[in-house]
Amino acid sequence: MTTDDRRTDGGAEASGEEFEEYADLGATTENAMEIAETSMDRVRGLVPDETLADRIRQKSVHATGDPEFQHLVRFTGETADEPVVAGARAVLEERPIVTDITMVKAGITGRGHDCRVEKAIGNGGELARRTGMTRTAASVLNLDRRGVYDDAIAAVGNAPTAALALADCIEDGTRPAVVVATPVGFVKAAESRRRLRAVAERHGVPAITNVGRRGGSGLAAGLTNELVHVASDVRDGEVDLP
Amino acid sequence: MTTDDRRTDGGAEASGEEFEEYADLGATTENAMEIAETSMDRVRGLVPDETLADRIRQKSVHATGDPEFQHLVRFTGETADEPVVAGARAVLEERPIVTDITMVKAGITGRGHDCRVEKAIGNGGELARRTGMTRTAASVLNLDRRGVYDDAIAAVGNAPTAALALADCIEDGTRPAVVVATPVGFVKAAESRRRLRAVAERHGVPAITNVGRRGGSGLAAGLTNELVHVASDVRDGEVDLP
Repeated sequence: MTTDDRRTDGGAEASGEEFEEYADLGATTENAMEIAETSMDRVRGLVPDETLADRIRQKSVHATGDPEFQHLVRFTGETADEPVVAGARAVLEERPIVTDITMVKAGITGRGHDCRVEKAIGNGGELARRTGMTRTAASVLNLDRRGVYDDAIAAVGNAPTAALALADCIEDGTRPAVVVATPVGFVKAAESRRRLRAVAERHGVPAITNVGRRGGSGLAAGLTNELVHVASDVRDGEVDLP
Repeated sequence: MTTDDRRTDGGAEASGEEFEEYADLGATTENAMEIAETSMDRVRGLVPDETLADRIRQKSVHATGDPEFQHLVRFTGETADEPVVAGARAVLEERPIVTDITMVKAGITGRGHDCRVEKAIGNGGELARRTGMTRTAASVLNLDRRGVYDDAIAAVGNAPTAALALADCIEDGTRPAVVVATPVGFVKAAESRRRLRAVAERHGVPAITNVGRRGGSGLAAGLTNELVHVASDVRDGEVDLP
């Protein structure tokens, strides 16, 4: 279109009614919130709505658009709720949210928490060059050396090597408040999550992960945002943590 | 772990061998590139490798971790290759890549192109408040008014309303070089892509989309990055565009 065409019908915008179909998820406008509710209502029709863990299962379906994904989520802890409780508490205590890559950081909501949001990538260039390991793994190791992961909400959405590095850090004594790890892909993704689950289990670190090759940054951000959402509900007196 | 524990074994890093398992996708280090190749080799074992459209199908499988996704991708154009050719040409001509949200922008590779990467979100606050439409849709309409979408690579990964707004812009005369649209979810996501396909078809705008409720920011970024990759191969003489 030409810029001029558009400018001449700018007056039509003021009505608002014609824009109803533009309302959707994650926004702050009235229509947006209404439709976000519709979307979660549909998900609640597909996933149980009894426990805190169910909220994470629901969010996994919401984030992936796939009802089957609820069966792929795994909870490491004494109970399935434990990592959700640990995550919500960490949000309430304003612990940092540390993501593997920029994309996951970009997906973390800005509302409902006062946690610092930090990404690992970009902190390991020199170590990566020296050792041949990936920049993301090197970044995780470097951040860990500065104590960043202790008591943090550690979210890994993309890099299997970040999940493997985080597992090593936990073996070496690091204790994140909770780990959310959903790296995706055909090489090491499922294996990295399996290793993370085993290490987290052994060292008592609550974790939310998935099985299979699927996953990704959007899922990791969505699940982490659900921890923020649970924390908001605790703050509003709608949810009690055990 | 304590910071001190870690510092004392810092010397071990210099070897590199023990870090081999940290090598993976999307990185610049030697091991990383080797494993990225392994990953795409596995995908090529699952998806045909004949046409330019196949490269997008492969990337969809790579990005979602799901071999079935190859069957969900749709190509709008005279041929299935047309939107890939149009996208690669647009990259070679250094057209802007315009994403709906920050997360998609964060997923666009920094290598292999000199395109400006811009996000729509953040450009529509006032219009959204005035009309009740989502901020993303309002941002698309505002950017379009400035002519940003003409000849651009338009990538929509998250917001169905952004896809709907973009469809309206195309109906009103805007001509992106190519559209990549994969919004995810239970409300309007599939419908927004269906509408976009119909409008793109009618107005001769090449488009890459998918069917069903799945999709997301990671997929949109991955498919857009594959257009960059095809352009790189053209530049290197490995691929000829028709």
